[in-house]
Amino acid sequence: MAPLGIGLIGTGYMGKCHALAWNAVASVFGDVERPRLAVLAESSQDLADIRARELGFERATGDWRALVNDPAVDVVSITTPNAFHPAMAIAAIEAGKHVWCEKPMATTLADAERMLEASRRAGTVAVLGYNYIQNPIMRLIRSLLTEGRIGPVNHIRIEMDEDFMADPDALFFWKSEASSGHGALDDFGVHALSLLTILVGGVRRVCGQMARPYVDRPVEDGTRRAVETFDIATMLVELETGASGVIALNRSAWGRKGRIAVQIFGSRGTLVFDQERMNEVQLFVADGDPRTRGFRTILSGPDHPPYDRFLPAAGHSLGFGDLKIIECRELIGRIRGEDAMVIDFESGIRIERCVDAMARSARSGTWVEVAT
Amino acid sequence: MAPLGIGLIGTGYMGKCHALAWNAVASVFGDVERPRLAVLAESSQDLADIRARELGFERATGDWRALVNDPAVDVVSITTPNAFHPAMAIAAIEAGKHVWCEKPMATTLADAERMLEASRRAGTVAVLGYNYIQNPIMRLIRSLLTEGRIGPVNHIRIEMDEDFMADPDALFFWKSEASSGHGALDDFGVHALSLLTILVGGVRRVCGQMARPYVDRPVEDGTRRAVETFDIATMLVELETGASGVIALNRSAWGRKGRIAVQIFGSRGTLVFDQERMNEVQLFVADGDPRTRGFRTILSGPDHPPYDRFLPAAGHSLGFGDLKIIECRELIGRIRGEDAMVIDFESGIRIERCVDAMARSARSGTWVEVAT
Amino acid sequence: MAPLGIGLIGTGYMGKCHALAWNAVASVFGDVERPRLAVLAESSQDLADIRARELGFERATGDWRALVNDPAVDVVSITTPNAFHPAMAIAAIEAGKHVWCEKPMATTLADAERMLEASRRAGTVAVLGYNYIQNPIMRLIRSLLTEGRIGPVNHIRIEMDEDFMADPDALFFWKSEASSGHGALDDFGVHALSLLTILVGGVRRVCGQMARPYVDRPVEDGTRRAVETFDIATMLVELETGASGVIALNRSAWGRKGRIAVQIFGSRGTLVFDQERMNEVQLFVADGDPRTRGFRTILSGPDHPPYDRFLPAAGHSLGFGDLKIIECRELIGRIRGEDAMVIDFESGIRIERCVDAMARSARSGTWVEVAT
Amino acid sequence: MAPLGIGLIGTGYMGKCHALAWNAVASVFGDVERPRLAVLAESSQDLADIRARELGFERATGDWRALVNDPAVDVVSITTPNAFHPAMAIAAIEAGKHVWCEKPMATTLADAERMLEASRRAGTVAVLGYNYIQNPIMRLIRSLLTEGRIGPVNHIRIEMDEDFMADPDALFFWKSEASSGHGALDDFGVHALSLLTILVGGVRRVCGQMARPYVDRPVEDGTRRAVETFDIATMLVELETGASGVIALNRSAWGRKGRIAVQIFGSRGTLVFDQERMNEVQLFVADGDPRTRGFRTILSGPDHPPYDRFLPAAGHSLGFGDLKIIECRELIGRIRGEDAMVIDFESGIRIERCVDAMARSARSGTWVEVAT
Repeated sequence: MAPLGIGLIGTGYMGKCHALAWNAVASVFGDVERPRLAVLAESSQDLADIRARELGFERATGDWRALVNDPAVDVVSITTPNAFHPAMAIAAIEAGKHVWCEKPMATTLADAERMLEASRRAGTVAVLGYNYIQNPIMRLIRSLLTEGRIGPVNHIRIEMDEDFMADPDALFFWKSEASSGHGALDDFGVHALSLLTILVGGVRRVCGQMARPYVDRPVEDGTRRAVETFDIATMLVELETGASGVIALNRSAWGRKGRIAVQIFGSRGTLVFDQERMNEVQLFVADGDPRTRGFRTILSGPDHPPYDRFLPAAGHSLGFGDLKIIECRELIGRIRGEDAMVIDFESGIRIERCVDAMARSARSGTWVEVAT
Repeated sequence: MAPLGIGLIGTGYMGKCHALAWNAVASVFGDVERPRLAVLAESSQDLADIRARELGFERATGDWRALVNDPAVDVVSITTPNAFHPAMAIAAIEAGKHVWCEKPMATTLADAERMLEASRRAGTVAVLGYNYIQNPIMRLIRSLLTEGRIGPVNHIRIEMDEDFMADPDALFFWKSEASSGHGALDDFGVHALSLLTILVGGVRRVCGQMARPYVDRPVEDGTRRAVETFDIATMLVELETGASGVIALNRSAWGRKGRIAVQIFGSRGTLVFDQERMNEVQLFVADGDPRTRGFRTILSGPDHPPYDRFLPAAGHSLGFGDLKIIECRELIGRIRGEDAMVIDFESGIRIERCVDAMARSARSGTWVEVAT
Repeated sequence: MAPLGIGLIGTGYMGKCHALAWNAVASVFGDVERPRLAVLAESSQDLADIRARELGFERATGDWRALVNDPAVDVVSITTPNAFHPAMAIAAIEAGKHVWCEKPMATTLADAERMLEASRRAGTVAVLGYNYIQNPIMRLIRSLLTEGRIGPVNHIRIEMDEDFMADPDALFFWKSEASSGHGALDDFGVHALSLLTILVGGVRRVCGQMARPYVDRPVEDGTRRAVETFDIATMLVELETGASGVIALNRSAWGRKGRIAVQIFGSRGTLVFDQERMNEVQLFVADGDPRTRGFRTILSGPDHPPYDRFLPAAGHSLGFGDLKIIECRELIGRIRGEDAMVIDFESGIRIERCVDAMARSARSGTWVEVAT
Repeated sequence: MAPLGIGLIGTGYMGKCHALAWNAVASVFGDVERPRLAVLAESSQDLADIRARELGFERATGDWRALVNDPAVDVVSITTPNAFHPAMAIAAIEAGKHVWCEKPMATTLADAERMLEASRRAGTVAVLGYNYIQNPIMRLIRSLLTEGRIGPVNHIRIEMDEDFMADPDALFFWKSEASSGHGALDDFGVHALSLLTILVGGVRRVCGQMARPYVDRPVEDGTRRAVETFDIATMLVELETGASGVIALNRSAWGRKGRIAVQIFGSRGTLVFDQERMNEVQLFVADGDPRTRGFRTILSGPDHPPYDRFLPAAGHSLGFGDLKIIECRELIGRIRGEDAMVIDFESGIRIERCVDAMARSARSGTWVEVAT
């Protein structure tokens, strides 16, 4: 197979992550051709030139439409603000390109549905950037669940907490505007839903509450402006399997930095994970000598592929960026027709529909079915 | 003040805890008279005799009504099965005795309300055995909240998990019968509510879900019987302060043994506690050098009264039984007219009403107001 | 068997612990007669009277020799400052009493040897107050080692750290005087050695270093006085089994409150314990699915006798005081001729000899054999 | 500055790490030119060709001497087995190249001294691959120490434990041969010494013990062969500052995977780090409200440069590979004449001399001065 030609739109933090992943994927895995970093697009030609040099791209452009239609480009990485995703993704798809689009799909469910339709029509690969599912420890959890190590799952709890909205004295900015979405729910809760999806499947119905820790925030002119989004969201859920669960999201949780705490309860054991210690998982299984049962802390290692592609010894820690490299390898695998662990637009739309149901439920104060 | 005369009804595990507390309270605190362990009642005279000898009581009886009316008895410890609480507590109260009754108050809200009425009429002290609130670390949390150390509280999460109902192959027994109550909610969830009460106050409304991890259980004759109670309960709550919260209870949570995990989020910080490590609390405060902010793990010590009455050095660990000794001292304080940290029948009824609202909400699938 | 008559000398913190243990032992265990709390001795009759009332003793005396010779006394609890141990213990032993003496035995090895001789001559029970060995979790560790769960032990590390000498601005007091002993080594290091003794046996030879974090300390008159003891001690050891090890003691370790961190390495696994979380032990065993190996955290529970005598459910936490109650029960067992887990004067002298060898090694800078 | 031309010798795990770092450094930091990956050398031309393609190098050779003398090469990465380091490093240095050589310097102290001499003569940059010092959290620790946040350091403990030699049934292989070195001490203990060096400075004298957990190991032919190296080493140390310390190394520590546990005690506080949780450090400072003192767990974040070059939010975790990218940036900084955090041959030789003193001490059973 000829090297894939890569086009990258957007070079913020996530764009850099994509560039690093495209750069590293062949070296790390050794079983794919080094991609050609063909074209990079930014908002201006000048900025694009600078970034292309830094990130190792051959050419640069100030016009993302040119990139999308460039014959040297096989895959388009889209890492721009969420509002731009639909237009860029659909254009790329319609130009016959594969797409690697950052999450969430779009800022409205309608836009996301349009992206899905475009993807279905084109038949190219369209994948979303849900990197947390790529953690080798998360794959271990998934394998253990599949193998029945803790028995059928009957209950799940997911908490996702950070503190970037925790300071009540921080100035009002766009994340408190209704136009940015619901708040914690879609801003970062979708990550929690991506884990739910790959670990225990879909959500049948939800009953939620969204809350504002601070009703208003200071504005630069000395006045205060009402907060329109919800920094806290808590959801009761019923899964398609019949299991019950609860999801709690808080982007104003002082001291939490990247917490995604997952607790999965089965008839034979329990699994516990926290993203802040992403190289560990805790497993309790109700077997063996009763005197020595306990939660065991398993450290990520070569027994948990593809950790072995990065490091030969356990306990030496993968990082956030490494997950993006794995995601990149999975995307290439999907393009090559291999069995790959990705959240494509088909799976991604279910997350978006779940978010939509949760927001409606919080407004109505009742249980709401998730559309299928 | 003359020594208090103590009557103890019931000598199971909790009866033993009460006896040990009455035995130890004067030695530990040094500021109260040693109580006289006057009368012990059990279901038969023979058993009562044996237990009185073991537990150090002067006299024994097979008739609890005799104990309740014994002039040597000033305080009646009630540690019998929950269904007996109302009759015993009301009889003791009406005989002019102080009452130390184990939680929950009763098996029905109506019975609990009758107990409260009796208590109001009599004017003697009537206190419930919510021992977790007596932890010096819990009092530290309460003080920090009162002092505003983490600012106004805007969100709270409480999880309470054990695994005594986790084994799907365990035989059906009375805890799966509807007559025993709702399940996790009232069986042990009331402890979680007792902490909520002293830390952040009352609950205004609730929306809950109760679930059965196992629909039926084996019976000794080889057949199976449908489970009638709910081993899992999850509740969205809105506090009287306006703060939001979530309570998750699971008595089939493999590997969890005595978990009561509390997370309290304020505008300036966060507090985290877990009963399985009852001598620790974690505190995050958003101040000082940003490079060195983090959750600090505070070990229980003499700076957290009344830890100092037990041990002169921090980090040497109090145990569950010690909490009961503190509770005993608080009860004596209340009797002496001191300011005391107890959940009396007035506070206790609010917990019972909250449980009632939660159960109704889970049935109706809607938000329910808690009666006041 | 008639109830044991108890005499208690000393009513500081440890005296209170003994009194509480004697008070509680029959209630907790249910298989021994309630001891008679016969006589209490303090430095004056007045103080003795007050304490006897608080602690529940029948009689009080200002003369410990009277107590030691009192026919109502079968067992003498000695909880006075270390320098008094030899005279009191020997007098009690020679009066035909059993002795429960707090650790360490004495302030000089010669005195300790004299205590041992007296004990050998008399044949009564003479036991030391090494309470940490009584932790049910510690007994679990011992059982697992005996059963070979982690294979033969080849290496051990013990750290013991507190911070009561950590403040360089604290005034000079007796613990910095040479007359108080070597410092960390004998002041609290003996606890570490008591654990070593019951877990992996005796020490063959040692090579140590003792250090002063602060060379002098302020005196009240504004001058400074040279520190004569060593707040830090580190020891390389070779056990009688041939295993190697290291012991590190620090009583000026800021933030450590009651740390006794034990790591035991065997050919099949590892055991890790920390007294600051005294209800937990971590066990790694190199077996089973390689993907899910890890240190498991075992919570203390009824499967670890005699935890079950205190609490019916795991994870509810014993405390420091509970260990003293267990120690009391073991002492009674030893008196009754049962197999008991105690450090008697025969075992205790080995700890004292080890301390002596360590101190000599630190002075000479060479390896020193422990006397046997 | 023109792009640096890179030559890489060796493409095992560490060679891959170097290649990834050279590939990523410009993208991550944005303030250096993308290096030219010029030449890669492997043991054969064929293997070199394959690896060059995978790792993105322009040219390949089976002759490392050709690489070392190639005018397109400015910096030589040496990642071959330790025995090859001296010849390659000296040749590269003498060809006027900068050198990035993996640790340890050599298999004998004499070779290491020769490397240092070559480096001194040439004046090019010669740096060792001690990546653990590059952790942003480690730099935070260093800054806090420099700022006096925990006061002058008076004691330090470092443990380094893995379990790759823990299985007694594993076949004898080269790591048990004396020709491979002393064992745990130089095989991986040098990492511990690198941390010691940057955090608290040099070692004045040492007293050590080395031990064999298993005296022999099975050979494929069914016989057994005596183990010649020491999988366990424990060292008492006295630092140049006068502080005392202990270093404990164990490469047969079941369950430990990448543990480097550092405890640093000062007159005002304590710092605790464990490489297995490399994105965290614990800090205790003896100030503020005594009720709320405790070890705080600080999560790595943008406040700890250069974490911010990788991720914009704290708590999202760097990995082992990221440390190598930082090391690469520091090396470039040193070449550019900036102030850089590296262990060059001058610092590296002190580690080698310390190892040598430790090995001699373990043999003699006495304290040994470290050569300066």
